[in-house]
Amino acid sequence: MRTLIVPPAAIVLLLSCFAPAQGAPPSGQDIYRLGVAERVASCVVCHGAQAEGVGQFPRLAGLPASYIVDQMQAYADGKRPNPVMRAIAGALSTAQISAVAQYLAGTAAPYLPAGPSSPTLLAAGARLVALGKWSAGVPPCRDCHGPALRGGGPALPGLAGQPEAYLFVQLKAFHDGTRPGGPLGLMARIAARLDSRELAAAAAYASALREDQQAEPARGRSATTWRPRPQSPEHFTPPPDFALPADTEDAGAVLLGERIFDNTPRYAAPYTGNTLSCRNCHTDRGRNPKSAPLWAAVPRYPMYRSKNRTINSLAMRIADCFRYSENGTAPPADSPELLALLTYANWLATGLPIGIKPSASGYPALAAPVKTPDRARGAAVYAHDCAVCHGATGQGSAFAGAKVIPALWGPQSYNWGAGMHSVDNAAAFVYANMPHGAAGLLSVQQAWDVAAWIDSQPRPQDPRFTESVEKTRELYHKSHVYEFYGETVDGHVLGAPGTLEAWSQENPLPSGE
Amino acid sequence: MRTLIVPPAAIVLLLSCFAPAQGAPPSGQDIYRLGVAERVASCVVCHGAQAEGVGQFPRLAGLPASYIVDQMQAYADGKRPNPVMRAIAGALSTAQISAVAQYLAGTAAPYLPAGPSSPTLLAAGARLVALGKWSAGVPPCRDCHGPALRGGGPALPGLAGQPEAYLFVQLKAFHDGTRPGGPLGLMARIAARLDSRELAAAAAYASALREDQQAEPARGRSATTWRPRPQSPEHFTPPPDFALPADTEDAGAVLLGERIFDNTPRYAAPYTGNTLSCRNCHTDRGRNPKSAPLWAAVPRYPMYRSKNRTINSLAMRIADCFRYSENGTAPPADSPELLALLTYANWLATGLPIGIKPSASGYPALAAPVKTPDRARGAAVYAHDCAVCHGATGQGSAFAGAKVIPALWGPQSYNWGAGMHSVDNAAAFVYANMPHGAAGLLSVQQAWDVAAWIDSQPRPQDPRFTESVEKTRELYHKSHVYEFYGETVDGHVLGAPGTLEAWSQENPLPSGE
Repeated sequence: MRTLIVPPAAIVLLLSCFAPAQGAPPSGQDIYRLGVAERVASCVVCHGAQAEGVGQFPRLAGLPASYIVDQMQAYADGKRPNPVMRAIAGALSTAQISAVAQYLAGTAAPYLPAGPSSPTLLAAGARLVALGKWSAGVPPCRDCHGPALRGGGPALPGLAGQPEAYLFVQLKAFHDGTRPGGPLGLMARIAARLDSRELAAAAAYASALREDQQAEPARGRSATTWRPRPQSPEHFTPPPDFALPADTEDAGAVLLGERIFDNTPRYAAPYTGNTLSCRNCHTDRGRNPKSAPLWAAVPRYPMYRSKNRTINSLAMRIADCFRYSENGTAPPADSPELLALLTYANWLATGLPIGIKPSASGYPALAAPVKTPDRARGAAVYAHDCAVCHGATGQGSAFAGAKVIPALWGPQSYNWGAGMHSVDNAAAFVYANMPHGAAGLLSVQQAWDVAAWIDSQPRPQDPRFTESVEKTRELYHKSHVYEFYGETVDGHVLGAPGTLEAWSQENPLPSGE
Repeated sequence: MRTLIVPPAAIVLLLSCFAPAQGAPPSGQDIYRLGVAERVASCVVCHGAQAEGVGQFPRLAGLPASYIVDQMQAYADGKRPNPVMRAIAGALSTAQISAVAQYLAGTAAPYLPAGPSSPTLLAAGARLVALGKWSAGVPPCRDCHGPALRGGGPALPGLAGQPEAYLFVQLKAFHDGTRPGGPLGLMARIAARLDSRELAAAAAYASALREDQQAEPARGRSATTWRPRPQSPEHFTPPPDFALPADTEDAGAVLLGERIFDNTPRYAAPYTGNTLSCRNCHTDRGRNPKSAPLWAAVPRYPMYRSKNRTINSLAMRIADCFRYSENGTAPPADSPELLALLTYANWLATGLPIGIKPSASGYPALAAPVKTPDRARGAAVYAHDCAVCHGATGQGSAFAGAKVIPALWGPQSYNWGAGMHSVDNAAAFVYANMPHGAAGLLSVQQAWDVAAWIDSQPRPQDPRFTESVEKTRELYHKSHVYEFYGETVDGHVLGAPGTLEAWSQENPLPSGE
């Protein structure tokens, strides 16, 4: 690993080399390029002429302005300990910091050539970035930092092309507790679950990732031969990725299914009506036993469902996800998309006994709320623990046209017919799985309250809508103990024609979508 | 059990009571009613005025004429030992026997009241009659004697309403070897596999079965609680019938699936184009491990199939059975019929590990033929071992509009796209499963030869037919080593337009269809 050490003394020395800007107050670009006379050195010295970064000095081009501002504050406070940056951040005014941050957020820079890394290290890094290490509770980096690691929102900086040394040192600092853990302490929690070798792998892979690439796992063949074997429904493990037979039609269908699961709007476009993907409700690509695992559904279908009062094949059940959670249309039973999802599901379930309900099925049962779920308390929970990623208006984030953080309500979220619209279901999901990578942070009551907040927001109409909201509520919304369809909230009847449209006009979608 | 013993001496006594008929030679009815002067007593004495039977004397009304003739011959020869009937049969001319047989075949009689039987005995009998005892190689009685046990063909007499004592004594005689075993010794083979208690149960149930009833298994709840458990793909057993959860929607779907499997033209009428049922190729209701068990398909799908060059769900695979083997149309994926078959299949497969091919899958592999399969040798095998049930022209038999013995070729059989049309598949099926209830009778070479005979007969067009027989053969019929589509046989091109129609005009369907 290449590192470049610049001692604080050098900065002091450099300070004398720059002249103050003349006339108008210096722009963000001026401050970046020239520094501030006699107090702050030019940023170029360490971060490069185009803010491209090098060694332990991060690439700043394109980072979210709010993220830069937050970091400068942390440097100034000493929370993010760094004597050089503390001196610089302390010497700049809030307005100056903001100006530089705005400048940097809007600039672009070429990527430096990636350093040499072993294929083994890069493959391990690719797995962490694209697949995570769920056995240790570590979600994939790209879930929050974007499919190309180019950022996932105001608090979620891009990582692609950052100098490898910088990434490693920061991950290690998160791991060791020498850098604040970020919002909700998420990065500290995650880094603590990985060892130095894994942090190095993630750093190497992220650093080497280029603008035209998405994070993809390396599917190398394992030296050991994996064989499917019967498994217990109590302690089930889906097959490892390398178990996939290479270059067969069946393997192709499994891979397409996984792609659809990962990025539904892209790979099953004709049938999606919003920007959600299967994995948003079924984390770890449908593998996570606490997140309605896809494999657990396979041995149970066909099965009677009271929802549509008929026997449902797994194909029909999956088609319902498209109709409701995806707010789209049902893929035909013989469409490549549905067949791929079925094949992927079956493959995940390899070894599970047919007809026996696995102990992990759906979301883990959640204790009843002590207090009736309350949307006002839920709003506070949301602001504290959810908004950092999902945004104040619940719309998540997008990058280059692809959703990174899912919308929880509004036109791009699940509709009033989806299972997640009922508070009990959402609460069970939230308690077991949220915040992403920090499950367990919320109390049972907080999960119920925040679910009530989320599920009392405008969202697309129930596709079973009949005559009126009242009639539709009577027909389809009576069986849930806690749900809001047809209720009046903030002066609007949820589910009534016009409610979502009015909300949408006031709440634009995130940029990049 | 009630028995009525009439000693031979009584017959001799009775002979003197009847006067010979005057004038024209006596009709079958006259012989039955009045006997033949001084040589043969009236049949009425033992068999009843309407040939309704009583005690150990069988009901003769409605029995197939050829069956009666055969039995009279066996009595005369002493092969079916009975001093009274030997005397009578020996005293009648061939013409007289034929006349009586024709008369009896065309007559009907009321059923006598069934004797009292314990519900337990009747339930056990119902299971044998409707489901068989496949663990001992015993097929259901109704497979050959018809769904209402009212007969299944010239050599397959009706059993319903026969006096219980008669049935038991005959079954015991088959069991003990004191009555000839019938065609191919089938009844001797079958009875030998059952004990006296089971024979008594079958006799009691068949005797009590009335004209408006079909044989149905009693689905009593077992005292012991059955629980699904993971099972090995090498030694799998489908759940017992009593394991079905009662009165649930899921159980309803399982039962409907089983009904469709048992009588496809009746329960899946819109999608069938011939008189075959699923169970004809998948015996024991899809349970028999040697007969392409339905349960073995469940853990393997979705799967790529070269037949249609795409991933197939199990629903699509089953739909193909309708398209080809049933010569019908594909049921929609969300039709009650297809969902019921899927549910039945999944239930049968309870405990099988997903994604692992069970060792019993398809038909057991058959050794390659030593000599090239030959249809002339096959014709001889067919005449000797198959025609007794399937008929000389391969059309099987029917009773009251329902098929009993399936057609093996012609307009009511599988079409040129069905798996069974290829000689290797048919040979494997035949060797492992035919004759029904006497598998193992044929040599490997005989199975290949008879399969070549069956699969070189006219049958419905391949639904994938494109342009011409030559083109269709080129597209879809090149992968099988032995098959006859497009070949010229007996001056006709198999599969060519007109071939089947010409054959059909010369070979009418069996009566009752």
